[in-house]
Amino acid sequence: MVTDSWQTIAASKRAHNAALIPTEWLLPSPPSSEVRNVIDVPRTCGILTDKEVEITEKYAVSGLVAEIAKGTYSAVEVTTAFCKRAAIAQQLTNCLTEVFFDRAIERAKELDEHYAKTGKTVGPLHGLPVSLKDQIEIKGTDFTMSYVGWVGKVAEHDAVIAELLLKQGAVLYVRTNMSQGLWFGEGNNNVFGRTLNPFNRNLTCGGSSGGEGALIGMRGSLLGVGSDVGGSVRIPAAYQGLYGLRPSYCRIPYCKTSNSSEGESDIREIVRSVLGPLTTSLDGLKLFVQSVLAASPWEYDPWTPRMPWSHEAYSLRDHGGEGGKLCFAIMWDDGVVKPVAPYTRALEETKKALLAAGHEVIDWEPFKSAEARDIISAVFNADGGVSAARQGDVHLYPRSPLHPNEFVGPGRFPPDIMFPHLHYPARDIRHQLSLSGEPQLGAVLSRTASELGVYDFFALCHRRTGFIKDALDHWNGTVSRTGTGRPVDGVIAPASACAPSRHDAPMYIGYTSFSNLADYATAIIPVTQVDPAVDVTPPAHEFRNEQDKFNYEQYDPEYFRDAPISLQVIGKKYEEEAVIRMTEIVASALGKI
Amino acid sequence: MVTDSWQTIAASKRAHNAALIPTEWLLPSPPSSEVRNVIDVPRTCGILTDKEVEITEKYAVSGLVAEIAKGTYSAVEVTTAFCKRAAIAQQLTNCLTEVFFDRAIERAKELDEHYAKTGKTVGPLHGLPVSLKDQIEIKGTDFTMSYVGWVGKVAEHDAVIAELLLKQGAVLYVRTNMSQGLWFGEGNNNVFGRTLNPFNRNLTCGGSSGGEGALIGMRGSLLGVGSDVGGSVRIPAAYQGLYGLRPSYCRIPYCKTSNSSEGESDIREIVRSVLGPLTTSLDGLKLFVQSVLAASPWEYDPWTPRMPWSHEAYSLRDHGGEGGKLCFAIMWDDGVVKPVAPYTRALEETKKALLAAGHEVIDWEPFKSAEARDIISAVFNADGGVSAARQGDVHLYPRSPLHPNEFVGPGRFPPDIMFPHLHYPARDIRHQLSLSGEPQLGAVLSRTASELGVYDFFALCHRRTGFIKDALDHWNGTVSRTGTGRPVDGVIAPASACAPSRHDAPMYIGYTSFSNLADYATAIIPVTQVDPAVDVTPPAHEFRNEQDKFNYEQYDPEYFRDAPISLQVIGKKYEEEAVIRMTEIVASALGKI
Repeated sequence: MVTDSWQTIAASKRAHNAALIPTEWLLPSPPSSEVRNVIDVPRTCGILTDKEVEITEKYAVSGLVAEIAKGTYSAVEVTTAFCKRAAIAQQLTNCLTEVFFDRAIERAKELDEHYAKTGKTVGPLHGLPVSLKDQIEIKGTDFTMSYVGWVGKVAEHDAVIAELLLKQGAVLYVRTNMSQGLWFGEGNNNVFGRTLNPFNRNLTCGGSSGGEGALIGMRGSLLGVGSDVGGSVRIPAAYQGLYGLRPSYCRIPYCKTSNSSEGESDIREIVRSVLGPLTTSLDGLKLFVQSVLAASPWEYDPWTPRMPWSHEAYSLRDHGGEGGKLCFAIMWDDGVVKPVAPYTRALEETKKALLAAGHEVIDWEPFKSAEARDIISAVFNADGGVSAARQGDVHLYPRSPLHPNEFVGPGRFPPDIMFPHLHYPARDIRHQLSLSGEPQLGAVLSRTASELGVYDFFALCHRRTGFIKDALDHWNGTVSRTGTGRPVDGVIAPASACAPSRHDAPMYIGYTSFSNLADYATAIIPVTQVDPAVDVTPPAHEFRNEQDKFNYEQYDPEYFRDAPISLQVIGKKYEEEAVIRMTEIVASALGKI
Repeated sequence: MVTDSWQTIAASKRAHNAALIPTEWLLPSPPSSEVRNVIDVPRTCGILTDKEVEITEKYAVSGLVAEIAKGTYSAVEVTTAFCKRAAIAQQLTNCLTEVFFDRAIERAKELDEHYAKTGKTVGPLHGLPVSLKDQIEIKGTDFTMSYVGWVGKVAEHDAVIAELLLKQGAVLYVRTNMSQGLWFGEGNNNVFGRTLNPFNRNLTCGGSSGGEGALIGMRGSLLGVGSDVGGSVRIPAAYQGLYGLRPSYCRIPYCKTSNSSEGESDIREIVRSVLGPLTTSLDGLKLFVQSVLAASPWEYDPWTPRMPWSHEAYSLRDHGGEGGKLCFAIMWDDGVVKPVAPYTRALEETKKALLAAGHEVIDWEPFKSAEARDIISAVFNADGGVSAARQGDVHLYPRSPLHPNEFVGPGRFPPDIMFPHLHYPARDIRHQLSLSGEPQLGAVLSRTASELGVYDFFALCHRRTGFIKDALDHWNGTVSRTGTGRPVDGVIAPASACAPSRHDAPMYIGYTSFSNLADYATAIIPVTQVDPAVDVTPPAHEFRNEQDKFNYEQYDPEYFRDAPISLQVIGKKYEEEAVIRMTEIVASALGKI
């Protein structure tokens, strides 16, 4: 029996998928890899008609849905436009995994027929193309979970989120790239290769929902679904200047979405991976959450709490009521890794805008950031580190077919300085990699961690519960400093310590992973882009640790030109409605809506 | 260094606690241990004044609270009455662990002063004595967690539930007995001994919140708090003819309540133990849940979902709205262990009453009861079985000081036929027992289980998620049989396979533990009592297994005379409000309210 090499299998899969893009949608002269910013290519390349440019560029998400509902555009027109634009985005950033354009057009036809017959839409997402991260099953489509060993598998069911989006009228048309095993902050794996950031292809798209970030960044989709266990929705949203939301555990149903394996190891029982939206416009967050909750997801997912959309919560019932003065706290620095200069500018601009809008702004005192990182790392590592890997033993990964010069070899970056205790939950991933012999990827890997026994694991869980109780008390203790009679209403923090990093650079995710640990509802709001004229490198501060030093040294205003700089708006557990409303208030203060 | 034997330590602790009961509250002539039913003793023993009998017997919970709020009784009067009645209950059933009557009276005085000064109550529970299971910390009180090795410890903080009950005006005055390690369905441990069922002292009070059951059964408390990980609120509520509620995970805050150890092993991360009320009257369930939720528990417990009391849910928004026709499904038999005869009668009476009230009633098709039992047993066992114990190797436990003839020696019952895979989560409990050398107790123990590694544990968690998803789909699949256009609104099931069992008899908990696995909100409603004239032993059915045979054979109408027979009203996850409303509807149909 001859078994193909993993390289052959992966190349064949990529070729198969590439052939699904109609030739008339291929760029006649793709920009060279020297061209960093490719955001304008879809509009200027001549493949989209004027109407398709209008459909894909003119509207906020709810605006486009409203136009379809009014009959301005048919679902087929809208779907076609986004299929074409997604195909273009793919050629520029390698953001897609599976495409099923024919199926999408068929679905759109059915929606149009329903509309023609009844005069009514199927649901609040009628005709809207929604992109999904590759881990989200759609029955009958290829399903690799980014593993070469899975090539050839076909999904046997719809994930609940896919089922509910369809129920609410959405059109599914593409799935998008992610990091191998879902465990690092880029979009790169041995099956589909690396996804690039369309604002600056020298930089990462972020991840693990990196394909969503790049696709939506190019408006190849206005709304997509990613997952987040350490920042995987928020980092790519932030790195492409999008809005994003990390909801609290299971508010958006995760059931029957895969996570790293076919029903073996997942950590969703402890620090749960959650699904959340990435979108071009802030109204997309609200539309997505409202639409999903209106479909009674708790009747489909046994973990989803029975919490319908609450207008009272959205009207800030727990924050003094609509129109009242809020108190935000700004996290300038988490005390472990100091954010690079443009974040400080973004925070200052936001503070100024909020004060001008009549709100209070105080400084946030970070709560034990290093301990939070240590606990979540220990949870992520509970099923064992990568026993075969050793520090510095970084495997080669395939070069991007689009960006061969972006190859970064082993040893270019110190492999594990950012999260010294963080490894793959490797026992499962090792198994998946062994199916094909493909190598392990990612900047975050290396040393050996031992699999815990359940007794020690429960002790870790107990430690975590104590920590997040203390964190909650810390937050509520701000009541003495706010002047509103309430604790701080929302915390505003950098989305990351660094602007979108160079490919394969170690990434410090402490700014996002705190919300995963404490289960805080958290949104991303884009604020600015790196402007080398303004965002100069400040004098070196006294470094706290290697990560801090590395983060400072990697920043280069010219290299990071145009990179989106985004912030987080952090609320408490299950405050999705209030966080969306507070994000609207921040966006309004900043003049963005 | 001389170390006292565990027997000496325990005897000394019991003597110390017994001395805290004022001598004038001691029964001048306690009934002999031959007297089985002691329910009337508090009223007839002469220790309570007529007014104290009125306070403790005349009112439903909300009625008594209303009288205090009107000024009919002072908080001190009410507290004194319940302290005295609890002291009497203790002498008859051994239901208490710690008493702090002086502290309670001080607290009641403060409440009365507040009321006199402001004309207002402190909160919705103003002046109501609330009893707490022994695991719930109250700062400054002795705290043994039922382990001899813990005697001498003092709680250093309030559990969140204690903190919130105080905030809402409650008076804390006693804590109550529980099973060793919280892991079997009685109230028995080496520190405090065994609690008896006041309706028939030959029978168990149930457990693990057994002391709550016996105390409230004697109206030594109208409202108390227990915990439930397999039925531990519902079984003692059912066995004493009380109302009880198992809420879904963390709806009632569990934070800083201990569970089996000082911050080591607990299983609350997976199948969470939950806190819930036991009460003499159905309105007590609603008052308790409303009062706790009104205190914003999510600001105190990081696991509590932000779900205020929902009047819409209570008004059956998801069940056709108030006043509509409901469809109940009756679980006559779970297919593993057939319930004894009086349950069949209780179910038939309930069905007839509901039909007469205009509701639909269909048969419930049990969903894989044996698999549910196997999964939850595996979860409970994940941190390892009792390696030192062997089948049949049941240690002696101390005889009840009140009921020396009720001693049941090793081997009287087969030790583990009911849950053949269920053991203590022993690694932790072994450690606690080793502190003093005290023996392990309980009918449910024995063979060796291995501690799982995290990888296998996650696989088990994943299996569980798949199972409860299928269970939810099974429930929703009833839509074709209800005639309401909705799936079944609530499931009515026996609270147990057996009437309150003989002491130390193996107990099948599959009827309750399914709700723990699937996280269904579930109430207990008392329906009837064993009447030997009616509830005769039916002809033997074809036994499915040893448990089924044992359960059939242990039933004896005369032995179980007067034993309360109660049912469960089961709703879906986080349907506390709807379950309370549906229980009211069932109670109303039965003419109980």
